[in-house]
Amino acid sequence: MEIVKGSGVIPGDLLAKVNSPADLKKLKEDELEQFCSELRQFIIDIVSVKGGHFGASLGVVELTTALHYVFNTPYDQLVWDVGHQAYGHKIITGRRDVFHSNRIYKGISGFPKRSESEYDTFGVGHSSTSIGGALGMAVASQYKGIKDKHHIAVIGDGSMTAGQAFEALNHAGISNANLLVVLNDNCMSIDPNVGALREYLTDITTSHTYNKAKDMVWDLLGKISKFGPNAQEIASKVENAVKTSLLHQSNLFESLKFRYFGPVDGHDVVRLTKVMADLKDIPGPKLLHVLTKKGKGYKFSEEGNETVWHAPGLFNKDTGEIIKVTPKEPQPPKYQDVFGHTIIELAEKNSKIMGITPAMPTGCSLNLMMKAMPDRAFDVGIAEQHAVTFSAGLATQGLVPFCNIYSSFMQRAYDQVVHDVALQNLKVVFCLDRGGLAGADGPTHHGAFDIAYFRCIPNMIVSAPMNEEELRNLMYTAQLDEIQAPFSIRYPRGNGVMVEWKTPFKKIEIGKGRKLKDGKELAILSLGHPGNLVTQAISKLEEEGISVAHYDLRFAKPLDETLLHEVFSRYKKIITVEDGTIVGGVGSAVLEFMAENNYSAQVKRLGIPDKFIEHGEQPELYEECGFSASLIYQEVLEILKLKQHIKAV
Amino acid sequence: MEIVKGSGVIPGDLLAKVNSPADLKKLKEDELEQFCSELRQFIIDIVSVKGGHFGASLGVVELTTALHYVFNTPYDQLVWDVGHQAYGHKIITGRRDVFHSNRIYKGISGFPKRSESEYDTFGVGHSSTSIGGALGMAVASQYKGIKDKHHIAVIGDGSMTAGQAFEALNHAGISNANLLVVLNDNCMSIDPNVGALREYLTDITTSHTYNKAKDMVWDLLGKISKFGPNAQEIASKVENAVKTSLLHQSNLFESLKFRYFGPVDGHDVVRLTKVMADLKDIPGPKLLHVLTKKGKGYKFSEEGNETVWHAPGLFNKDTGEIIKVTPKEPQPPKYQDVFGHTIIELAEKNSKIMGITPAMPTGCSLNLMMKAMPDRAFDVGIAEQHAVTFSAGLATQGLVPFCNIYSSFMQRAYDQVVHDVALQNLKVVFCLDRGGLAGADGPTHHGAFDIAYFRCIPNMIVSAPMNEEELRNLMYTAQLDEIQAPFSIRYPRGNGVMVEWKTPFKKIEIGKGRKLKDGKELAILSLGHPGNLVTQAISKLEEEGISVAHYDLRFAKPLDETLLHEVFSRYKKIITVEDGTIVGGVGSAVLEFMAENNYSAQVKRLGIPDKFIEHGEQPELYEECGFSASLIYQEVLEILKLKQHIKAV
Repeated sequence: MEIVKGSGVIPGDLLAKVNSPADLKKLKEDELEQFCSELRQFIIDIVSVKGGHFGASLGVVELTTALHYVFNTPYDQLVWDVGHQAYGHKIITGRRDVFHSNRIYKGISGFPKRSESEYDTFGVGHSSTSIGGALGMAVASQYKGIKDKHHIAVIGDGSMTAGQAFEALNHAGISNANLLVVLNDNCMSIDPNVGALREYLTDITTSHTYNKAKDMVWDLLGKISKFGPNAQEIASKVENAVKTSLLHQSNLFESLKFRYFGPVDGHDVVRLTKVMADLKDIPGPKLLHVLTKKGKGYKFSEEGNETVWHAPGLFNKDTGEIIKVTPKEPQPPKYQDVFGHTIIELAEKNSKIMGITPAMPTGCSLNLMMKAMPDRAFDVGIAEQHAVTFSAGLATQGLVPFCNIYSSFMQRAYDQVVHDVALQNLKVVFCLDRGGLAGADGPTHHGAFDIAYFRCIPNMIVSAPMNEEELRNLMYTAQLDEIQAPFSIRYPRGNGVMVEWKTPFKKIEIGKGRKLKDGKELAILSLGHPGNLVTQAISKLEEEGISVAHYDLRFAKPLDETLLHEVFSRYKKIITVEDGTIVGGVGSAVLEFMAENNYSAQVKRLGIPDKFIEHGEQPELYEECGFSASLIYQEVLEILKLKQHIKAV
Repeated sequence: MEIVKGSGVIPGDLLAKVNSPADLKKLKEDELEQFCSELRQFIIDIVSVKGGHFGASLGVVELTTALHYVFNTPYDQLVWDVGHQAYGHKIITGRRDVFHSNRIYKGISGFPKRSESEYDTFGVGHSSTSIGGALGMAVASQYKGIKDKHHIAVIGDGSMTAGQAFEALNHAGISNANLLVVLNDNCMSIDPNVGALREYLTDITTSHTYNKAKDMVWDLLGKISKFGPNAQEIASKVENAVKTSLLHQSNLFESLKFRYFGPVDGHDVVRLTKVMADLKDIPGPKLLHVLTKKGKGYKFSEEGNETVWHAPGLFNKDTGEIIKVTPKEPQPPKYQDVFGHTIIELAEKNSKIMGITPAMPTGCSLNLMMKAMPDRAFDVGIAEQHAVTFSAGLATQGLVPFCNIYSSFMQRAYDQVVHDVALQNLKVVFCLDRGGLAGADGPTHHGAFDIAYFRCIPNMIVSAPMNEEELRNLMYTAQLDEIQAPFSIRYPRGNGVMVEWKTPFKKIEIGKGRKLKDGKELAILSLGHPGNLVTQAISKLEEEGISVAHYDLRFAKPLDETLLHEVFSRYKKIITVEDGTIVGGVGSAVLEFMAENNYSAQVKRLGIPDKFIEHGEQPELYEECGFSASLIYQEVLEILKLKQHIKAV
């Protein structure tokens, strides 16, 4: 029994012995409950001091244990949907002693990742990919004639609402592939899950439909009991018939040709192992409905708000107190909260404004509007495609939908933006939260591509505010009647820069940037929040007597041509800075302008390079990508030195 | 009774009187059948001589008539899914006399389009958007307090398999919005529809489940008939109970909180009007299941192959003979057929190769492989997202999936390409058919953005062949073991340029372009098929003594840096040509290279400009976009003249 190096946490006796699923399999059945208790405690101990996702992993401790106990991983292929519930999986599969580096720069990822472990069969982060991925694996085994390999997708009820999951079920149902879908039903995504499917699952779980039908039959039999003395026997037989019909042949999943099993208690580990062992012998596509509770087994998360305990940050594990460092000085707000408050402010004056989010009300702060104006703000479930097309439908009726989707999730609705919104030139305001490097969630969550993939769509207005005031003014401008086009506003995860952020609204002219500072030999053009890094770099350069101009482009599209003519007329050395890919990003837009106008200048583009960036704190990642304040400063020196060098030659 | 100007077609007496739905409403109920017959004949008359989609519109003649007869369009909002079935709708809503310009350059669109008519409430072309769009409209009415407006989505069973439709159902089910979904069930997309949902709908239609349950109950009652003389009465009551349970409470759509009605015969127009009139009084989300037959009412399409009659081209309406102009000379094949044959050739030698298409087997010619190797080629339904993630799953098991998706439909799976394939650096070969200007299908189907949106994704190899041989060699190269990365190959709709196309396979070095011709003052860099337009332009310029170099880039990513160093060292005037958006396309990639390497040159980018391009024949659209052979020729003259002008000054 040793403290895990670097974590200060001592695993329980059983957990300390488990370095792989093979070790887990050595435990006796009656030790499993104790093992689960230790695994749960280990997660509590580490997450409370290191941070990370919490409720989801606590909820699947027994499920995770049972899966690795019963199935022959990694030969059997286990795919976790989304993956923030896979902490127990990571700990069991050889990563117990590095688990405290979870989500830390250069540490292990907060999500399953193929390059990290052979047990991580499919990298995840976005939802609803597990069934399709596992089906691909199952069909591959089938094609290869491998019959003893199991393929298991573990998917939450929230993830099940995304269309992609349905598409995969529809395909799987007509295959004979050996696929087990474990539906981890905890009634939650990050926020409480919504939609008709949710109600249906509750209905199954609480047997409403079955009970209703049973009542109906009993009622009927009550009336016909006069027909004979054996009514009781008839009743029982008919009840069975109805039960079979209702719970099996007409179950939603059975409709899709899956064999349905459940619901079973997801916190009874021994029962789970038995059910799973039975399922191993059943061929074809099958679904096991498991009921779990997010945050299970930790008093405060069980009793508290599940959304808060999804990823609570650091907390005192003994008191359940979430540790909030209260800074001495007032701090700038999160951009998401500026959005959340500002949309209400605007909506109070403009009755056309509606708010839409696909399952991220807390993450994007639309929950504020959902509370204040419940008939005007919608959580549509994990359904980005639908969120955008639904917004387009609202827009056809003259309403002004603000559709808030994280930049990386907007990738899910790209066609809908092109086909349903931009092609029809409908006025939908896209607010892209988590634009740029998202931090600890890593490459699945970085919003790296939106500037490039939105900029090429005709009719789109593509903007990014440099601070809170700019965000408010862009939102204000977007909702004005005179704007009749799709309008995208992207901003990063985390805090802005203005303590006094609630500034009066000012209209911004579309495609109009700002000159923040004149300079001598070199100009920096920035888009969005990284402009603040530029400001820092320039102020350091000023101290050293180097004068650099700074322009905030504001719009990646349309470009401010007047501003750019000024820049290219005055400067022969230009740096562009953006928190997005430099392949096709706003720096490339500047190059396009330069080519179209026959200017010639040395242009250096800073931004996210052409590779996937791993997880870490935002400042660490800015440094890695080369556009931290200090690296912008150095880039300026290098470019100017180079010039001196050429002159000297 | 007059010949419609320009079409040579005479509408029937009733149809001739209908210039709007208001006129239709003046018809007596007993005239509706005759009207439908005339509408059907009019579609046959025009499409047989003008071309266009056929089977789908014939199948919904009665449905279309009933909808406009019963509902108060355009006040009531009618949304057609996909829209190639909306010809009858167009003819009824004031476009009878321009219908012969359907799909012709500057004529009316083959799809509903908001800018064309107030009856076209939502522009379509891609599938499965109708429920979400109509829900947005319904929620808008609800918010505005409008109670008498109906919102109707008409969606095929094929479109219902796409996840987006499910997402919309899931949201609609918990709303109280006044939404009617008409499920037009004809067992077909363009190809026969696939998946578990299809089987389920057949099951409803043929009442398999119900009959099975009824048999079970009867069986049971048979055994219990000894219990009394009134078994018959019991049986009837129990049967009703089971029927109610099965067909209503546990229906798939009822599970999603829709009220389900049907199935009803979609070719009984009077019955349809009565059912719809009844549905007007039923609040909330409801689904009407209508059974239709694609190609209904025209002998040859009813009896023939439904896929062929989806869009048969011109045909002799009397004999049903599809008119094929047999050219005297052998012609180059369609690119899609080169794909279809080549994948089989490669798969015969490489057992790892698998083929995947989302519901386009005939359109992309994967049907050849599905026939030749049924265990290795999959139609997964209208489910682009799933197609890509499923392919990723196959790739994790060492297989080599060729996932063929039209360029504009690939927009549906953008996130899956980023998140499931590229981020994991899995080897999936994307074959993007219909890359570039797709022709008569218009803006929803042009593949304008793929070069820009793929080029910014790390790890991706992005290529486009200039001809059939190049397509074969790229496909050959992509499947080689030494390539371990996502590999995209995009090619246009229509024919290539090589009659003798079945050339032996040659490996192409990744990121290696071709110099086709040296030149003097100017170089043209092309990507893909438009290289042939460049060749034509250059050969005309040669005739006039103007020497222009031509490079075929082959790869938009990685770029051929050696080639580009040569180009920028030798030429100060460069034209790039691509059949894709010039915003962020391969021309911009060339500008990025130029900036990174401190070259300076005049670069003109030709390609699809930053606007949505309407429908027309491909040559018409190349002309409109400025990269037809003659416009490339003129561009060269202009650039060179410009130079002379400057010299003169």
